[in-house]
Amino acid sequence: MSKSAVVLLSGGLDSSTVAYIARKEMGSKGKIYLLSFLYGQRHSFELQCARKIAEELCSPFQVVSVGLKGLVESALVGSSAIPTSGVDPKVIPTTWVPQRNSIFLALAFAYAETVEAEFIYAGMNAVDYSGYPDCRQEFLTHMEKSLNLASKKYVETGRGFGLITPLIEMTKAKIIYTGLELGVLYDKTWSCYKGPDEQGRACGECDSCRIRLAGFATVGAPDPLKYKETK
Amino acid sequence: MSKSAVVLLSGGLDSSTVAYIARKEMGSKGKIYLLSFLYGQRHSFELQCARKIAEELCSPFQVVSVGLKGLVESALVGSSAIPTSGVDPKVIPTTWVPQRNSIFLALAFAYAETVEAEFIYAGMNAVDYSGYPDCRQEFLTHMEKSLNLASKKYVETGRGFGLITPLIEMTKAKIIYTGLELGVLYDKTWSCYKGPDEQGRACGECDSCRIRLAGFATVGAPDPLKYKETK
Repeated sequence: MSKSAVVLLSGGLDSSTVAYIARKEMGSKGKIYLLSFLYGQRHSFELQCARKIAEELCSPFQVVSVGLKGLVESALVGSSAIPTSGVDPKVIPTTWVPQRNSIFLALAFAYAETVEAEFIYAGMNAVDYSGYPDCRQEFLTHMEKSLNLASKKYVETGRGFGLITPLIEMTKAKIIYTGLELGVLYDKTWSCYKGPDEQGRACGECDSCRIRLAGFATVGAPDPLKYKETK
Repeated sequence: MSKSAVVLLSGGLDSSTVAYIARKEMGSKGKIYLLSFLYGQRHSFELQCARKIAEELCSPFQVVSVGLKGLVESALVGSSAIPTSGVDPKVIPTTWVPQRNSIFLALAFAYAETVEAEFIYAGMNAVDYSGYPDCRQEFLTHMEKSLNLASKKYVETGRGFGLITPLIEMTKAKIIYTGLELGVLYDKTWSCYKGPDEQGRACGECDSCRIRLAGFATVGAPDPLKYKETK
């Protein structure tokens, strides 16, 4: 029997890697449904990247709008500055968007119920993760159970949807290594919290750029993106 | 110390009653933040009702858009017919919107984190509830924990947000009785799954109308809405 999965795809390095992992794990007869969100993020360039990844994977791609702007305070959906101070694992940075993963997972489970996919793949990572509460395994385990309790399929059949987070225990280097083996086109992904500058370059100094650059450095592979400042 | 709450308000009978309960429970120094959603529902008349209730309560009112249309199948966000066959408690009806309460609660917790409200009030009801899985106490208990695990406040302080569902064990008659005591203006609420007809009347035959009418009949109070067909 063929398997299918909904994949949360932001167009970043992690979720793009997850999309390739999901495609492999669903098998040649399986299907993946790629889901992105327009939630008031500072730039929509990552959505263009997500679309390119979806084209590469020849998979259905849908963008859902969620009106988070005006509802939450976050450097990622507002106008306040993106921090460039480096990663302190004890502090939740201003780039955190309250309940973002909760909202995205709830929408992904809703979509999975509709297209009758058995799995939801998502790129949460508990190693190089900027300290976001909604990237921790404890949250993910609880949320999977909660969303199954709200699902018609689970209530009617006792079988729930499976939330798969293949990157959860991986370092950024391990993620990149895995993705390179699967043929992920990292030149089509985007990680920088800021959009590209007029020359198409990432800033190289926000948390997301720092973590990505360190990962490629550890693997010993070149990052195909262009950077304004390389560390 | 003053208390504050985010209240999920659809403009229906239940959530409007909850808004009045929340205002009372927050006290004269407290504050309630009313939150509605534009999610592709068949008619937006209930949002007009929600706005009127918010004006009555002199409270901040915000409408968040969520692009559920095209993502899920439901008689409430699509074009298929609204069932009028009566309520069968063993069958989940086609009016169910997958994960709707999960999505709304996640957004409410996000908003509560932003405005620093301690409580989230919501009108789920496990008695006259059309058999929706996401109205059951088991789901709500798990979801409250899940959303707290994703919250910055809970991670940093160990104190979470409280999800309050005052109607959960009430019959519809008990809800109406409670609301009348609090002065809820039920003429400003709307329950019918269809919008008003050209004469401003509810259909009187969808599940939601049937449950509402039966509730008023039990209380022995007149429903101030006009109906096309009264049962």
